[in-house]
Amino acid sequence: MAGSVFGTNFRVSTFGESHGKAIGAVVDGCPAGMKLSEQDIQKYLDRRRPGQSEFTTKRNEADKVEILSGVFEGKTTGTPIALLIRNTDQHSKDYSNIKDKFRPGHADLGYFEKFGFRDYRGGGRSSGRETGARVAAGAVALKLLDEFGIEVHAYTRSIGPVTISSFDPEECCKNPLYMPDKKAAEQAGDFLKDCIRDQDSAGGVVECIATGLPAGLGDPVFDKLDARLSYAVMSIGAVKAVEIGDGTAVALSRGSENNDELYMENGRVHKKTNHSGGITGGISDGGDIILRAYFKPTPSISRPQSSVDQSGEDTVIEIKGRHDPVIVPRAVVVVECMSALVIADALLAGQSARIDRLRI
Amino acid sequence: MAGSVFGTNFRVSTFGESHGKAIGAVVDGCPAGMKLSEQDIQKYLDRRRPGQSEFTTKRNEADKVEILSGVFEGKTTGTPIALLIRNTDQHSKDYSNIKDKFRPGHADLGYFEKFGFRDYRGGGRSSGRETGARVAAGAVALKLLDEFGIEVHAYTRSIGPVTISSFDPEECCKNPLYMPDKKAAEQAGDFLKDCIRDQDSAGGVVECIATGLPAGLGDPVFDKLDARLSYAVMSIGAVKAVEIGDGTAVALSRGSENNDELYMENGRVHKKTNHSGGITGGISDGGDIILRAYFKPTPSISRPQSSVDQSGEDTVIEIKGRHDPVIVPRAVVVVECMSALVIADALLAGQSARIDRLRI
Amino acid sequence: MAGSVFGTNFRVSTFGESHGKAIGAVVDGCPAGMKLSEQDIQKYLDRRRPGQSEFTTKRNEADKVEILSGVFEGKTTGTPIALLIRNTDQHSKDYSNIKDKFRPGHADLGYFEKFGFRDYRGGGRSSGRETGARVAAGAVALKLLDEFGIEVHAYTRSIGPVTISSFDPEECCKNPLYMPDKKAAEQAGDFLKDCIRDQDSAGGVVECIATGLPAGLGDPVFDKLDARLSYAVMSIGAVKAVEIGDGTAVALSRGSENNDELYMENGRVHKKTNHSGGITGGISDGGDIILRAYFKPTPSISRPQSSVDQSGEDTVIEIKGRHDPVIVPRAVVVVECMSALVIADALLAGQSARIDRLRI
Amino acid sequence: MAGSVFGTNFRVSTFGESHGKAIGAVVDGCPAGMKLSEQDIQKYLDRRRPGQSEFTTKRNEADKVEILSGVFEGKTTGTPIALLIRNTDQHSKDYSNIKDKFRPGHADLGYFEKFGFRDYRGGGRSSGRETGARVAAGAVALKLLDEFGIEVHAYTRSIGPVTISSFDPEECCKNPLYMPDKKAAEQAGDFLKDCIRDQDSAGGVVECIATGLPAGLGDPVFDKLDARLSYAVMSIGAVKAVEIGDGTAVALSRGSENNDELYMENGRVHKKTNHSGGITGGISDGGDIILRAYFKPTPSISRPQSSVDQSGEDTVIEIKGRHDPVIVPRAVVVVECMSALVIADALLAGQSARIDRLRI
Repeated sequence: MAGSVFGTNFRVSTFGESHGKAIGAVVDGCPAGMKLSEQDIQKYLDRRRPGQSEFTTKRNEADKVEILSGVFEGKTTGTPIALLIRNTDQHSKDYSNIKDKFRPGHADLGYFEKFGFRDYRGGGRSSGRETGARVAAGAVALKLLDEFGIEVHAYTRSIGPVTISSFDPEECCKNPLYMPDKKAAEQAGDFLKDCIRDQDSAGGVVECIATGLPAGLGDPVFDKLDARLSYAVMSIGAVKAVEIGDGTAVALSRGSENNDELYMENGRVHKKTNHSGGITGGISDGGDIILRAYFKPTPSISRPQSSVDQSGEDTVIEIKGRHDPVIVPRAVVVVECMSALVIADALLAGQSARIDRLRI
Repeated sequence: MAGSVFGTNFRVSTFGESHGKAIGAVVDGCPAGMKLSEQDIQKYLDRRRPGQSEFTTKRNEADKVEILSGVFEGKTTGTPIALLIRNTDQHSKDYSNIKDKFRPGHADLGYFEKFGFRDYRGGGRSSGRETGARVAAGAVALKLLDEFGIEVHAYTRSIGPVTISSFDPEECCKNPLYMPDKKAAEQAGDFLKDCIRDQDSAGGVVECIATGLPAGLGDPVFDKLDARLSYAVMSIGAVKAVEIGDGTAVALSRGSENNDELYMENGRVHKKTNHSGGITGGISDGGDIILRAYFKPTPSISRPQSSVDQSGEDTVIEIKGRHDPVIVPRAVVVVECMSALVIADALLAGQSARIDRLRI
Repeated sequence: MAGSVFGTNFRVSTFGESHGKAIGAVVDGCPAGMKLSEQDIQKYLDRRRPGQSEFTTKRNEADKVEILSGVFEGKTTGTPIALLIRNTDQHSKDYSNIKDKFRPGHADLGYFEKFGFRDYRGGGRSSGRETGARVAAGAVALKLLDEFGIEVHAYTRSIGPVTISSFDPEECCKNPLYMPDKKAAEQAGDFLKDCIRDQDSAGGVVECIATGLPAGLGDPVFDKLDARLSYAVMSIGAVKAVEIGDGTAVALSRGSENNDELYMENGRVHKKTNHSGGITGGISDGGDIILRAYFKPTPSISRPQSSVDQSGEDTVIEIKGRHDPVIVPRAVVVVECMSALVIADALLAGQSARIDRLRI
Repeated sequence: MAGSVFGTNFRVSTFGESHGKAIGAVVDGCPAGMKLSEQDIQKYLDRRRPGQSEFTTKRNEADKVEILSGVFEGKTTGTPIALLIRNTDQHSKDYSNIKDKFRPGHADLGYFEKFGFRDYRGGGRSSGRETGARVAAGAVALKLLDEFGIEVHAYTRSIGPVTISSFDPEECCKNPLYMPDKKAAEQAGDFLKDCIRDQDSAGGVVECIATGLPAGLGDPVFDKLDARLSYAVMSIGAVKAVEIGDGTAVALSRGSENNDELYMENGRVHKKTNHSGGITGGISDGGDIILRAYFKPTPSISRPQSSVDQSGEDTVIEIKGRHDPVIVPRAVVVVECMSALVIADALLAGQSARIDRLRI
């Protein structure tokens, strides 16, 4: 099964395992003539990099990206952009004691049934480490969107029971939890310390906002913009729910409340509200795109858990090694990047929607 | 943009507008040798059919499906199965007074920007009517899954503020709201009558459960089984959130609570709990698959709403015509069918995952 | 296996068997705003229609196309265009005596091994009848290309040993063999009468020329324009060789002869020669695109042939029924249409090749 | 435009330019559990490597492949196999004098129109060097096929006017032209020396034979096995014609000659002849697959040629640098690898063709 390719017009193919030689991505379809440097990509990878605070794994990866192709004299060439990130700190021995045991909350069991083997070294391809390749590719999409005034920003909305109650975009980069609310970040930090002490882990919510999209991106049926966003965001390991706009709350709303009424201002159509989260009927409606991803707690905990092993015996597993007590802060940039990949794909796909806009 | 094809190995291409001649689907990739009749498909279409109760549009469509190809002597041939449903009751004139106005909550504005025109007759391709084609195609997938003991069932979990508090599968088909709780169905009916009287509409939640899946279906990265399910379900018009398993609640959980511990019984691996909703790391884990789709209230309401028209003038719109006060009951079978399409696709894709299982 | 979808941006999904209810196509990705009527399509179908001369099967099919969707008020909507052609003259009984025998030169044996059954009624999906759906879809592509001054024309270059020696485009439609050389058409007609008398069949060559393409369509690696054209044309049943430009002759040429030298005239780049057939390095070079398809003789002949049956016994087969003694004249429009599908796809794909040409 | 991905179930994504840092490929969809080492791949790359004789460019590339992912403990994991080949000998300065001139017979002009720029260093992505990535990926496909007894072998059939007249498979690897006929190889060598002296270049023909395929691989309509092979082989730069089986000769044949009659022997169906080249109606028929690719002469010749430059002025170009006087010998392994990619893809796709063969 070939499930490591994402997108149609702006297409990404990723590769790499947690404890293999490298991870990476090939971006096919980025238009020619866009300025692109390794630094444009590196700054996003740095946000995902482990080892930055007490709340992330101690694994120390430089995560330096190398552009192998697709850029000439500082500009994209229109041909595949290959991005390589070498793994440097694999510590495979950490996994030897759980080599034959299926870790609860992980893909181990299904993976073994599907492929007939299991890469016990940190999950192999199922590891969160593969998201590094998504970030590298997403950075290229973010650069493309930026050329057209489209920005995509994500941040931590909640960790465990602690939700932000104010929004200061500057604050996001100042605390290790990427929360735009300093006080909430402190409370969340305290909560996480409790989790670590309890040999336990926490979940949380990432919110992502895209601004600057014109109305008209997306498609009316299967490839609805929100459908593609859900696909992209739910494909990030540990996400168990995705909301667009008002999300689950719409089920309790009424049409008269939920509909976004329209009006003209300065010659442009505006919406009085944005319950839709910027997408109506699968097509961007000119409002900001808003989505939320709900992350489960990190499944790797050091507490003893009941499990079974590959020979079909009951066993108890204790997962040592270096694990994030919460995946959310490092996942923020992944949500941002996956969202950008979807929007870039829709932007390119939309180029051929109308005969009066075709170029030849 | 070619966004009306869904799936890779079990691939569906749909067509048709609300007020065109017909809707339909072409299913490409269904294995040869499966029994299939029009009645196998018709029974699902009948569940989606309008005009069945006071809570659905009065539009009267027989929705009779015709198999045009791909079946020979009662069995599938392995070649495309074309399914045709003629539109018979279009009432185009109902839309003349809103011809130039963008309906709030609908795709109209984005559609107009994207394509440079708008099919004012009930939304054209953006109409919920296109889901009829999905149901026809999904019925084929359901038949395929059934051959392997996989069943997919959806039902209404809530309408507006009314949520089921008991579960009787027999009851689902007895009330027009497809709720498995008779009392809740009555309360929801009362609530909907209020909505109709208020010229307003309601939202709700559909839950879908798939049983009988072995562990090992799905893929570890982009084509995670839950990612594909989210893509499929979010592509149904009016869905604004999708949950798998515990869904949004996982953000408040801890690893020690959320992980599903494993044990052996009768020679098979079992899970003590099913917080994961049957999918871990993107691959089926042997538990029942559970997902929920949150539907917004029907945007077509007859109350006056502020809007703008195609010439860029402020206006007021009152949407007459025949509209469902809630989309949920008719969407139940659509969620079921879209889920089945995803699982069937994963089932076929998985055939080539292991070299020791290849046939030649 | 889902092998009935062709193209990426301009995407066609076909369905239907020789002796089923209908054949048809769904065109997904055609830009919105293009004028399109059933007559635009019918005129191409009429060229493929059987029963037009003594050299084609006597099967009498009206091949009337019905546009089911994707056109509103005479223009394309940007959504799937479904095209339906009912089968009306199936004569299934003609096939009863060969029901269990594999016909030499046909797909029967491989088909049976692949799908575990066989549609003995004229080959089912393997029948040349499926090309009717390609013609319907290709007619839409031809219309799109025509809007931009690109024309695609095919004709019969040779039948058996008779090759054209002059070229009169008007003549093509005047003789039943679609040859642009009246004298050659007469000689070919005599040759075919010999074949019929001998209970035998003939092959031939179709040549196709596309004019008006700008330089710059196609892609440098796998999706070279000539690679896609070869894919498209070789997918027509009975084609066993495809040439672009000088074709097989290039193997005997030298670089100094084969290179097309460039020069300026009237402010545009021109080529002194067109050995390349309009495509260099996979990308259109501004010259006319020229390709040739070599068709094998119709495999259905009434002479006795050695064969085997489904139970694995040696047998002798005599194929009665209504068969074309040569497939070439009716295949001319199929080559034209498949070529147009490829060029239309490249035209749409090329819309996002350069950042300085993106629209938002 | 995303045109660097090939295949559906066995899917390859390639990247890299002639004078960039590296070339490479990502293979997605190879089944888990297959033994694979770098040496398995290297042996094919060594056959394509330049600098091996007086008849190939003097560019000296080690072309050492590194497997970055997808292999664990010597076996494939079912996840993407990334293959990296660093460029080590680029000599960019060779191209400075032709920086602004369009080389006749090359993609330069079309490339410039398409992408708005041109990588003057050896053609960038249009260089034959990209085929190294195809060989690396194809080697994985060849290994997979070998597990099932399917072998694919290509060789030089002719160079310029010199065609083989005998066939000794051992001889292929003994002469630098990969001809299975020692005497022909000597004559072809003499012919090439003439070409070099004349500052000219030659074309030729590669023939490829695949043995061991069962009947039943391929698809009846667009994804015919021969259509996919033509697509694959024509996508190799410099190929201008592709033949399957009797190829162009079928146009002169009669049905009674061209049909391959069937008979039983040892409980299996056999064909008396193999005019079809192993594929009938798009599906393998149990015979050897036979195809031929016709290569044009290398367009880079040092003779003065008329051309134009990017500013639209007539000019004369003389191409210095290190160029193969004939591309054929190095292309042999590329044809072999591209053919293997197609067959491997069909093999995997075919796994889900019949419901009685599905596994769950």
